[in-house]
Amino acid sequence: MADTPETPILDRISVPADMKSLSDRELVALAKDVRAETISAVSETGGHLGAGLGVVELTVALHAVFDTPRDRIIWDVGHQCYPHKILTGRRDRIRTLRCEGGLSGFTKRSESPFDPFGAGHSSTSISAALGFAVARDLGGAPEHGIGDAIAVIGDGSMSAGMAFEAMNNAGHLGRRLFVILNDNEMSIAPPVGAMSSYLSRLYAGEPFQELKAAAKGAVSLLPEPFQEGARRAKEMVKSMTVGGTLFEELGFSYVGPIDGHDMESLLSILRTVHDRATGPMLIHVITKKGKGYAPAEAARDRGHATARFDVSSGKQHKAPSNAPSYTSVFGKTLVDLAGKDDKVCAVTAAMPDGTGLNLMAERYPSRCFDVGIAEQHGVTFSAALAAGGMKPFCAMYSTFLQRGYDQVVHDVAVQRLPVRFAIDRAGLVGADGATHAGSFDIAFLSNLPGMVVMAAADEAELMHMVATAHAINDGPCAFRYPRGEGVGVDLPEQGEVLEIGKGRMIRDGSRVAILSFGTRLAEVEKAAEALTARGISPTIADARFAKPLDRDLILKLAADHEALITIEEGAIGGFGSHVAQLLADEGVFDTGLKFRSMVLPDTFIDHASPARMYEEAGLSAKHIEAKVLDVLGIAQIGEKRA
Amino acid sequence: MADTPETPILDRISVPADMKSLSDRELVALAKDVRAETISAVSETGGHLGAGLGVVELTVALHAVFDTPRDRIIWDVGHQCYPHKILTGRRDRIRTLRCEGGLSGFTKRSESPFDPFGAGHSSTSISAALGFAVARDLGGAPEHGIGDAIAVIGDGSMSAGMAFEAMNNAGHLGRRLFVILNDNEMSIAPPVGAMSSYLSRLYAGEPFQELKAAAKGAVSLLPEPFQEGARRAKEMVKSMTVGGTLFEELGFSYVGPIDGHDMESLLSILRTVHDRATGPMLIHVITKKGKGYAPAEAARDRGHATARFDVSSGKQHKAPSNAPSYTSVFGKTLVDLAGKDDKVCAVTAAMPDGTGLNLMAERYPSRCFDVGIAEQHGVTFSAALAAGGMKPFCAMYSTFLQRGYDQVVHDVAVQRLPVRFAIDRAGLVGADGATHAGSFDIAFLSNLPGMVVMAAADEAELMHMVATAHAINDGPCAFRYPRGEGVGVDLPEQGEVLEIGKGRMIRDGSRVAILSFGTRLAEVEKAAEALTARGISPTIADARFAKPLDRDLILKLAADHEALITIEEGAIGGFGSHVAQLLADEGVFDTGLKFRSMVLPDTFIDHASPARMYEEAGLSAKHIEAKVLDVLGIAQIGEKRA
Repeated sequence: MADTPETPILDRISVPADMKSLSDRELVALAKDVRAETISAVSETGGHLGAGLGVVELTVALHAVFDTPRDRIIWDVGHQCYPHKILTGRRDRIRTLRCEGGLSGFTKRSESPFDPFGAGHSSTSISAALGFAVARDLGGAPEHGIGDAIAVIGDGSMSAGMAFEAMNNAGHLGRRLFVILNDNEMSIAPPVGAMSSYLSRLYAGEPFQELKAAAKGAVSLLPEPFQEGARRAKEMVKSMTVGGTLFEELGFSYVGPIDGHDMESLLSILRTVHDRATGPMLIHVITKKGKGYAPAEAARDRGHATARFDVSSGKQHKAPSNAPSYTSVFGKTLVDLAGKDDKVCAVTAAMPDGTGLNLMAERYPSRCFDVGIAEQHGVTFSAALAAGGMKPFCAMYSTFLQRGYDQVVHDVAVQRLPVRFAIDRAGLVGADGATHAGSFDIAFLSNLPGMVVMAAADEAELMHMVATAHAINDGPCAFRYPRGEGVGVDLPEQGEVLEIGKGRMIRDGSRVAILSFGTRLAEVEKAAEALTARGISPTIADARFAKPLDRDLILKLAADHEALITIEEGAIGGFGSHVAQLLADEGVFDTGLKFRSMVLPDTFIDHASPARMYEEAGLSAKHIEAKVLDVLGIAQIGEKRA
Repeated sequence: MADTPETPILDRISVPADMKSLSDRELVALAKDVRAETISAVSETGGHLGAGLGVVELTVALHAVFDTPRDRIIWDVGHQCYPHKILTGRRDRIRTLRCEGGLSGFTKRSESPFDPFGAGHSSTSISAALGFAVARDLGGAPEHGIGDAIAVIGDGSMSAGMAFEAMNNAGHLGRRLFVILNDNEMSIAPPVGAMSSYLSRLYAGEPFQELKAAAKGAVSLLPEPFQEGARRAKEMVKSMTVGGTLFEELGFSYVGPIDGHDMESLLSILRTVHDRATGPMLIHVITKKGKGYAPAEAARDRGHATARFDVSSGKQHKAPSNAPSYTSVFGKTLVDLAGKDDKVCAVTAAMPDGTGLNLMAERYPSRCFDVGIAEQHGVTFSAALAAGGMKPFCAMYSTFLQRGYDQVVHDVAVQRLPVRFAIDRAGLVGADGATHAGSFDIAFLSNLPGMVVMAAADEAELMHMVATAHAINDGPCAFRYPRGEGVGVDLPEQGEVLEIGKGRMIRDGSRVAILSFGTRLAEVEKAAEALTARGISPTIADARFAKPLDRDLILKLAADHEALITIEEGAIGGFGSHVAQLLADEGVFDTGLKFRSMVLPDTFIDHASPARMYEEAGLSAKHIEAKVLDVLGIAQIGEKRA
């Protein structure tokens, strides 16, 4: 292809073992090639760009010094792994990143032995590395062996409690283990929290020395036959009183900070610690997100995630949007409410832009709290805000709310505190794939006593649900909505407060009723059109609430129809299960009802467009149509849902 | 009562406001009274003794210095709150602790305005305190106002990631806020982890000074007109280089360590920080769990939790046990397996005794890991052990596994790693009440693709399930079992590997089939006896698996009976919901089936004996009997289940 960059050194590398014969100078050149290849690939596919560009030198250095895949490199989150994939036998597929059937945008065990532990969510890498280190010492994998375990974790990820738990345990166990702290002063959003300030102080105001390894713990690790000799060693000793104590107090030896784009420093330090480390070691590497690609470096988010783009200009090819995103509708509606009620406040866990709370943060900064990657704390903090008389909206992605599940149960639901959970990215999310699917929230929230659970069928409904959540002041509630654009309905001036536990009729029909919870409603309506053409006119209702259920509506639909089908963007155990329980309890099944519950299938669905993922899930219009025909016993031509 | 101690000062105190007129000397005497009253009360009720005795002086000092309930004291976990309850208007009910209808063993919002935030699980207090501090600053409760927010947290609880997340956020926000680190070098088990070693180093080898407030951050807070003058101030300045840096790096001012049983020191420091603090402040207090009661001080667990006991001897009145506990059966079976397979290893989150892993820790210490109060890390650590070729059993209480839910999804299930979850305290747990109920695990695990979910009907079944879990090496599994004694069945030499997804027939009958999942089976059999006396002979089956379901068994039961009833010790969305989904998909409801699913009701059930809690839940033999009669349309005399 015309746009493919020249990559003479990279062209010689199929797997990391090929790097062993390269000189240090060639490794520098290799990094240059990898950077060019990464930019070129992401310009075609879109994806996470900035994080990968920040670790190009680190990736090359790690593979040059360590013996992968025997040594296990665990990339935290995994969105910075494109350079790693390029170097580990996946270059030929790198232009399929995040595309259906292509490479995952994260590390993935099933994809390569060089991905020993997959990710997607943050802050798991230290726990994983410790597990490998312990398994190694216990002889867990005698056939291939386990060498070193290396976690590469960003400063944002380090703020999560889980990373602290792992550090605490690793420091206690004292096994040989490497934690590379990739400090770029950015998670997705600029970092928050005291830990971040601490890291900044570790190198504040000082120009990088070529090698600024530091602190007591590293003394025994001084590179011995150091290439440039005593001068550097002296500098190191001079800086030995500098920082790192926080990590040392946790039982780690600390080395750093190191310039993560200086290959020579990286190789020196990594070779030294590789040869000498006996216990847990933290290597503090300073990198620049988006490094080496000017448009990314200049961007506010440092090129965190990008659409396809033109390499020379950096201009992104974004599809024009037809409707506002659910996220922005939520954000705007909340800001409106906050303007009218000074008790309204908002909490996000490191996702101000992703959740639409950036609008709130701009407009009412004193009432908008980014707690960092800290869902556990974020939920309980919200609970206490509610206990203190505020009206908190806790905005999290469905998949990340799993991190705060116990707090939802123990601090919010048990205490009946009016926290409003705004659950973005509900259902299947597209290119981020299985790790980010919001499949389980309907189930894990709807069985909590006192919880009100809503799902928006379109963006106007979302406005009503924000207003409704605001009005619920005697207990917790949640409303969920998907990633991406709304369906393009007209938006009201302001949302109206819905009657709790009441659905709405969409279409009167006969024989079969379809009760939808969430944005499958559009597919249901599409199916109804196709069915009407076949002479079947289904009734359609939007449940709005999975809890409390609209008992009257459901029983009436059951009574008036031969068949009742529920559909939702969630796994079994949620809306359909609650409807089934009601129907059973009411004796509706006793005399027969053709009841079906369409839910996500019992499988993790790989990345593709959301529409394609729902195809695979069997929740598209054609599947609804087929389900109706099947349940009514009408013969179909062609495919039948598995 | 003859055993009631003399408590002359305490008798003058109804609410903390009454303490304001007491001299410091009287406060010392008050603490003595509160300690005696605590011991006396717990001797009658049983409960958490050691933790409360450790904070008697601290409790008195906090209420003396702060203005509760306007100032919010948040007791982490809450099991140390008995002295607090005695001083806050609940002395008259203190001998009903943990009894049905009596006081909760934890703090509870619905019980008293002096409990601003309830607990039960650990490490939530700093998040809660921060929420109150922020709500105060935002004017959240103008009617009564919010004064100070004070979290009292143990060193064990401090090791949880959630506490770190909250410290990180509190340090960043910089609000006035107090964290009292109650350092007794004990969580329930002796503490583990690097943080614990760090705390020990803060006072290692040094005899307590009367006042050893320390470190840079506290300089501006030096008590000015200090009672004993310059001598103490000098000592403090001398100790200013001592510890606390870890907390200071997180943005807190650090004071300590302080002798938590020296009322004078406590009052001095608390008065000083109360008058001067402007930002977040950590006050490090050293206490002794079980302090002041010799039998507790001498016990290995420092009197953590006790049955009723004789005050003079400390001898506990334990009911004789009729059968081994599920916990011990699990522990022994695992040790047997570990003896035969050196890949077997075990992970607990600060519950070695509670989970039965103490046996494993004794016998195979190198393969047993107590990660501290760190469920998130514990689950992912287990996942990596599995990825590294080991066979990890991750033993957690159902209610605490909620803390690691995202890790179960993201690190275990998505990657299909063979982690074996041993889920203790499944279902209702008794005296610990709603916060500790294991109600949700069946639902939140059974909808995870690839997860095998089992429940033991008795202790022999548990042995089989441990063996089965050991044999499952291609994906994750979980087996759940309740708190307390087994039913007394004969135990086999060793567990046998069950066929995956196959239940077992217990009793052949007609008209109605009852399909049980878990230990309700004994109640089902009891109900069957009563029903037989009425001429109805139910079929009974034990499902063993909620996932995968025994499709053949279920369809046969449905085909051969007029009615099918499922029962489980869990909330809606679990076993019964999966059965309903199967029956719906198979068209069984189309032609009619009297199907009912008996699950935990949609309410949080307060503490009582487990049997009484299941009574209230409507899951006892009599409710099963009533359900059968109801579904078969047989008139009943007397009560009908709501």
